Amino acid sequence: MSLVIVGSVAFDTIETPWERKEKIVGGSCTYCSLAASYFTRPKIVAVVGEDFPKDTISFLKKRNIDLRGLKIVPGGKTFHWQGRYGYDPNQRETVRTDLNVFENFRPEIPASYKKADIIFLANIDPDIQENIFLQVEKPKLVAMDTIGLWISSKPTTLLRVLKSVDIFFVNDEEIRILTNERNLIRAGKKILGMGPSLVILKKGEHGALVFGPDLLFGILAHPCEDVIDPTGAGDSFAGGFLGYLDKVRSFSKKEIRRAAVFGSVMASFTIEDFGIDRFKTLKPGEIQSRFEHFKKLISF
Amino acid sequence: MSLVIVGSVAFDTIETPWERKEKIVGGSCTYCSLAASYFTRPKIVAVVGEDFPKDTISFLKKRNIDLRGLKIVPGGKTFHWQGRYGYDPNQRETVRTDLNVFENFRPEIPASYKKADIIFLANIDPDIQENIFLQVEKPKLVAMDTIGLWISSKPTTLLRVLKSVDIFFVNDEEIRILTNERNLIRAGKKILGMGPSLVILKKGEHGALVFGPDLLFGILAHPCEDVIDPTGAGDSFAGGFLGYLDKVRSFSKKEIRRAAVFGSVMASFTIEDFGIDRFKTLKPGEIQSRFEHFKKLISF
Repeated sequence: MSLVIVGSVAFDTIETPWERKEKIVGGSCTYCSLAASYFTRPKIVAVVGEDFPKDTISFLKKRNIDLRGLKIVPGGKTFHWQGRYGYDPNQRETVRTDLNVFENFRPEIPASYKKADIIFLANIDPDIQENIFLQVEKPKLVAMDTIGLWISSKPTTLLRVLKSVDIFFVNDEEIRILTNERNLIRAGKKILGMGPSLVILKKGEHGALVFGPDLLFGILAHPCEDVIDPTGAGDSFAGGFLGYLDKVRSFSKKEIRRAAVFGSVMASFTIEDFGIDRFKTLKPGEIQSRFEHFKKLISF
Repeated sequence: MSLVIVGSVAFDTIETPWERKEKIVGGSCTYCSLAASYFTRPKIVAVVGEDFPKDTISFLKKRNIDLRGLKIVPGGKTFHWQGRYGYDPNQRETVRTDLNVFENFRPEIPASYKKADIIFLANIDPDIQENIFLQVEKPKLVAMDTIGLWISSKPTTLLRVLKSVDIFFVNDEEIRILTNERNLIRAGKKILGMGPSLVILKKGEHGALVFGPDLLFGILAHPCEDVIDPTGAGDSFAGGFLGYLDKVRSFSKKEIRRAAVFGSVMASFTIEDFGIDRFKTLKPGEIQSRFEHFKKLISF
């Protein structure tokens, strides 16, 4: 099968209570495709400026990510996001956003991508997400992510896109705003009535819940003592989840459960270092052994 | 084996965003012993006033709870706690506390209790908890619970008691204050260096983590769509956990994992109704079937 990921490739400036990193490589598409690259050969659709580092492009290629959909705007500047985390890594604040080349980004799906089986609309303007639907031939599965910004600024488009997708990745804070429900179980089930047939509710250090018709699955987060940088955890979750499904070519309940564990595994690696650095050393054997560790953690 | 529970038997006035219940029966010892009564025959040590309802005493007896340690003070008034929950059931505020007969409570362990195998010091003044140690012959296992009030008002005694116990039940908010650690995994491990050989970290709707030397176990909360009254969930967890261990007469890692699941199961029933009402209808078969449901919820 094949997996197309549409999202941002970006510079992030990250402030944690302990450290600050200036303009390191980030972006929803970057994290997601790196995580997925351990399971399949993801194809990405994104835009960067001429200032984007060549060695990162080489690294993405080396990870066997298809970059034919990555547009490099001559003379352009790459999208930049600046965020600050509190002592609680679940709490983050956007300090600054420079759209740069993203301002006029109208993603074009390369011809070679059009028959993709799985499309992931990573966090990005819902108008852009909607536009993607017009460009692809009927995929087997469309998944999306979003952030609070779009829930409050573009709710109408967002709800329209949501209606058309199969899988919705969302975190606890976002789902409470979107559904106006405090209780996460009710909130998850409510989303099932809004379009998606599968809801992946990400709860940071508390793990994730998967809701489907006739499916409720819970997974813990890997017990991590040192969260270095939480950025990209959600995107890495989606990458592990969708990359695994693309690899096994099945959307059975059994594989969806396993996919969620691999999602949690990939997220747990991402937060162990700043930006995408952990992917520079991560070996497939480590992924498998953490998967086994999850089994031990919960078995009774 | 045998399990002795020392704590409060009380009246609670509960305010949720949807309902208010005036002076219904509650108390750490009440919840804990009711939950434990499905596994063993718990013996309680507590005090009430003459105003305590006779039919509740009959109900506790009917549940086969040993009441020889329950002191009824003639003319006295039962301890009363009033609390208010927000839309987030994890957030609660104490509105009022009337100590009443608790003010001068110096628990006396009946002679028939002194050879208890497991002692549970439910949430209660740490001075009283400490006093219990002087009265019992060497039990196999001592467990304790506490609340934020004692962590801030009596830290020295609390830390001294903590040093002597085997198992510490604590919630996420309390452990963060006690250890000054945001990261729950580090916080849990830190407590292991402060006395207990087992830490049960309760996270409300996010489940629980169990820390021991060479043991880390995670359990989800039962997915509950209608949390009617969160009061007593932690005490019911402890009751299920300790009641089960008392029943199986083993503290092996395998049984500790299963005990935590039964703890979570018992807590999940308590919150389905106000006060102790759910115990009035709860059947053993429901407990077993929820235990099986936990397995399904997490299996991959």
